[in-house]
Amino acid sequence: MYSERIGRLKSSVIREILKTTSKPGVISFAGGLPSPDLFPVKEIANAAQNALLKFGPSALQYSVTEGIPELREKIAGILDPDSKYIRPQNILITHGSQQGLDLISKLFIDKGTVVFTETPTYLGALQPFRFFQAEIEPIRCDEEGICIDGLKIKIRDLRPELLYLMPNFQNPTGATLSMERRLELVELVKERNLFVIEDDPYGDLVFDGERLPSLLRFGGTENFIYLSTFSKTIAPGFRVAYVAASEEIIGNLAIIKQGTDLHTNTFGQYVISEYLSSDNYSNQIKLIRETYKYRRDCMLSAMKRYFPEPVKWNCPSGGMFLWVQLPEGTDAQKILLQCLDRNVAFVPGQEFFPDGSGKNTVRLNFSNAVPENIEEGIKRIGEVLKDFII
Amino acid sequence: MYSERIGRLKSSVIREILKTTSKPGVISFAGGLPSPDLFPVKEIANAAQNALLKFGPSALQYSVTEGIPELREKIAGILDPDSKYIRPQNILITHGSQQGLDLISKLFIDKGTVVFTETPTYLGALQPFRFFQAEIEPIRCDEEGICIDGLKIKIRDLRPELLYLMPNFQNPTGATLSMERRLELVELVKERNLFVIEDDPYGDLVFDGERLPSLLRFGGTENFIYLSTFSKTIAPGFRVAYVAASEEIIGNLAIIKQGTDLHTNTFGQYVISEYLSSDNYSNQIKLIRETYKYRRDCMLSAMKRYFPEPVKWNCPSGGMFLWVQLPEGTDAQKILLQCLDRNVAFVPGQEFFPDGSGKNTVRLNFSNAVPENIEEGIKRIGEVLKDFII
Repeated sequence: MYSERIGRLKSSVIREILKTTSKPGVISFAGGLPSPDLFPVKEIANAAQNALLKFGPSALQYSVTEGIPELREKIAGILDPDSKYIRPQNILITHGSQQGLDLISKLFIDKGTVVFTETPTYLGALQPFRFFQAEIEPIRCDEEGICIDGLKIKIRDLRPELLYLMPNFQNPTGATLSMERRLELVELVKERNLFVIEDDPYGDLVFDGERLPSLLRFGGTENFIYLSTFSKTIAPGFRVAYVAASEEIIGNLAIIKQGTDLHTNTFGQYVISEYLSSDNYSNQIKLIRETYKYRRDCMLSAMKRYFPEPVKWNCPSGGMFLWVQLPEGTDAQKILLQCLDRNVAFVPGQEFFPDGSGKNTVRLNFSNAVPENIEEGIKRIGEVLKDFII
Repeated sequence: MYSERIGRLKSSVIREILKTTSKPGVISFAGGLPSPDLFPVKEIANAAQNALLKFGPSALQYSVTEGIPELREKIAGILDPDSKYIRPQNILITHGSQQGLDLISKLFIDKGTVVFTETPTYLGALQPFRFFQAEIEPIRCDEEGICIDGLKIKIRDLRPELLYLMPNFQNPTGATLSMERRLELVELVKERNLFVIEDDPYGDLVFDGERLPSLLRFGGTENFIYLSTFSKTIAPGFRVAYVAASEEIIGNLAIIKQGTDLHTNTFGQYVISEYLSSDNYSNQIKLIRETYKYRRDCMLSAMKRYFPEPVKWNCPSGGMFLWVQLPEGTDAQKILLQCLDRNVAFVPGQEFFPDGSGKNTVRLNFSNAVPENIEEGIKRIGEVLKDFII
């Protein structure tokens, strides 16, 4: 009755966990939500009114598949103020980066197409890759991001079509690809001529030091397809994100998008565009950086106080997630069940490993919890950990 | 480099025509746009403000894949006020009906899956069906919609998985499936146990007589998947539409949508939901009906005066399109080229025939042109027709 590919369908475990965490009283570090108390509600209300005043019915009509020209121009200007490698015709506006991944999968993936991913990696990317029946090959990562040596060998042996990675404050680990590795990776990719999907939803959320240049900037549009979004910096409810790539790829993705949903919602595009026209955007990013950095530090400090000795974690320099390593042999799923009894939630890291490993890892979200709850939630997790580990 | 299915990709001819019709001075009957001067801009501005006042950051946050509960409830109430066959859990909110078609294709279509369509049919449905490599089998239609006798024979011989049709004011012909045939079709479908995609974007735009009950209402969710949208009655720029189907199918489509774009834009859903809460909606539909009916009548009257004798056309009882039959052997594409020289545009009907026939047919849109332009545009087309035909 259903198509062959439906055999691979399953709802994400995270989604199921999130259902249980929506009840009142639960402290959740499980989701990947931006903090709603930071949404610029007033400024968005103004932007919505301005969009309707300035553009009238055009802000509510069907629009072109590629996206409204005003917004494509602004995005090109944000990515590359000097118009050296990105121009408006290199931009496609999508319904969230998730749609970018769907469209790219439709364009590139046949049954058996080899796709390399970091391990662990973003679950939402595995969904469309698997749906279109790719063969997923996980590549080892460490605190500096994907390991180039391992990648070199696997590229030679398996000849992938695509490499998917998140170079900044990766979901789930928070790791950032180092500058040295960026340069090595670009060289390797150009030599082997594969396509890289550079997924960068968190790049703006940098807390310590400077934001590193994108792979797209080093490597150009011949091999690099860059994705980003306004979901983490303005608000996710508009589903306004974008792909930056070569004109040829953007053209093909636009034809595919036409048959997928015609175009990204016009009103949301105009609201985002109006919001960007005001001076609020850079202050908004600054506010989010400061707030999330403080929450990260609260969580790190609480973990130091409440987690037992053999548990290890990292200190990501931006983004929304911390990554925890429990002692070998510990099962994070079992710990989660105990934690849910105490009204605190997280996501077991195993979910993010394409090969099902990583049973002893945990992803903690710090962006969407106020400091008091971070303190209390980490304390509760620490109590459960002590029962299990000591 | 690209996936196998990309071989079938081509941009729609309509889309290419529409690019040429956007220049000033062109009278276009080519697109399928609702009339922007009827969009309730003020009421939408109010709804947007109310949504932000009432729901605050929640109107801008990530939301559930199925759609916000408020809107699912309202849609279920619109479709079935007595809750006899549709409840909120039977509704999935999508980014336009186009996304409904993409998700349904993902759920049902493998390479070679047999899909029956009306002929001519909506081009935007052929895109995802072809993209997922369905075998499309066109079924003959007349002024009462799809011909049941032909359908019976082909169902027996070809055992389709899906039947796609638009029972009300069809795009492109404007034809409506008669009551008698609705009953016959439901019986046949239940006997043969296939799935019917009932695409109903224009059902509210009825000018003459009463709106006929949906196939879903007669046949239930076991075999019928119903699609509709707010694009023609409120505004298309929100991309807010919906699928009504069995809970099982909605559940599967939701899992697929999760990997496709997570969820439909939250803000647009809240704005539509707030708009529906006001008393404006029924007046808005009344206004659109009256305006479009008048424009249809203007077009019919102009055609009578300006089109040469052997040209035939229908009088649809609702919707946005008229359908014209030129004498056998006339090529509507050639006529279009001459018309574009005179700054008037339409879509050659051949585009809508899955088998490439229908060279002598023309689709005319009457919803998006003011009466003076209808008069002038039809006059110009008439002049070209006279050169060709007499």
